[in-house]
Amino acid sequence: MAEPTSIAPAKYLRDPAAIYAQSFATIEAEADLSVLPPELRPAAIRMIHACGMVDLAADIVGDPAVVTASQDALRAGAPVLCDCEMVRSGIIRRHLPEATELIVTLNDPTVPALAASLGTTRSAAAVELWRPRLAGAVVLIGNAPTALFHLIELIAAGGPRPAAIIAAPVGFVGAAESKALLASNTLSMPFLTVRGRRGGSAIASAAFNAISKDLA
Amino acid sequence: MAEPTSIAPAKYLRDPAAIYAQSFATIEAEADLSVLPPELRPAAIRMIHACGMVDLAADIVGDPAVVTASQDALRAGAPVLCDCEMVRSGIIRRHLPEATELIVTLNDPTVPALAASLGTTRSAAAVELWRPRLAGAVVLIGNAPTALFHLIELIAAGGPRPAAIIAAPVGFVGAAESKALLASNTLSMPFLTVRGRRGGSAIASAAFNAISKDLA
Repeated sequence: MAEPTSIAPAKYLRDPAAIYAQSFATIEAEADLSVLPPELRPAAIRMIHACGMVDLAADIVGDPAVVTASQDALRAGAPVLCDCEMVRSGIIRRHLPEATELIVTLNDPTVPALAASLGTTRSAAAVELWRPRLAGAVVLIGNAPTALFHLIELIAAGGPRPAAIIAAPVGFVGAAESKALLASNTLSMPFLTVRGRRGGSAIASAAFNAISKDLA
Repeated sequence: MAEPTSIAPAKYLRDPAAIYAQSFATIEAEADLSVLPPELRPAAIRMIHACGMVDLAADIVGDPAVVTASQDALRAGAPVLCDCEMVRSGIIRRHLPEATELIVTLNDPTVPALAASLGTTRSAAAVELWRPRLAGAVVLIGNAPTALFHLIELIAAGGPRPAAIIAAPVGFVGAAESKALLASNTLSMPFLTVRGRRGGSAIASAAFNAISKDLA
């Protein structure tokens, strides 16, 4: 085993601006962003940055209108409805108007009983609690496929329509399927998503942060 | 475009227990966990579950002692030092003793000036603020390579030694390098990490949650 002294001083980039510049240069060099409409490329770059995988670009799909639809909604004071606390934690607050509400209903005390009575997950039941705030809101889903399925069903059934849906639920059961359903754009609503199993809170909030960056 | 009615009723799994069972069955069927020591497989399964990628197994590396070292520390009342709020948000609180502190120093008001004076990132400067709580703690890094580099330097220079390091910083600058340095185990300290660019808060907190699950 090497001596501890062998690792000091480690040579690594410490300057935040240089780190960002080199990260984004690597992404631009290695990722094929040409498959995406220009409007979605800044979000794609941030999503790739959040997961360390340049090939994510091939799975990103969205309506270019998601950018202005989200920005207009946020400027107008719309809340952001998040499916879990990790997504909310990933949002860069300073991009947003001071009054913007970041709402997570997952841990509302009524959710477990509601989930049981609906015969679904807590994540899907939590979406029911979005109803009073859903019209015109920006939706941000980073974890639960059932939250996205439930949201699509709720809207398709005539429920309130959000301004935009940014969704990257992750995993092996329902993630690819719920995102394919969103991407089929049956709802005729601005959206941004990632095809397949990959996703997660960091990717979802990175997409949102890229879109809200130029709000002012 | 399909009619809205064409998506209702969607057929998807709604039962949380069935979703978990099918997720873990998929991971067991598709992931090659045999490359990992048995002690690390439960953590690996949760890490894969958090990112939707079965091939992550090949990049997971750790000292099998990280499991009992973390559990013993948590039972003894050790705090968990997290590099960012997303990691803290991902921790399943009910696994832990009531008194366990989940500490994030990144947004401490002294951090920006400290980062400037040290010529490093806010994430690395925040690690300096861990010093009074670092001895015997469990460290959980899910975002910043510079936090991991700084921690390794601090310990190598004779600073306080945590009980275990679980680290999955992500990205294109320093992530692979900082994790390779951790994996070289120069510090002779129990660790768990993911080689390469991939990582993130969800993977880090999933590893921690798998380890803390059997604490009681």
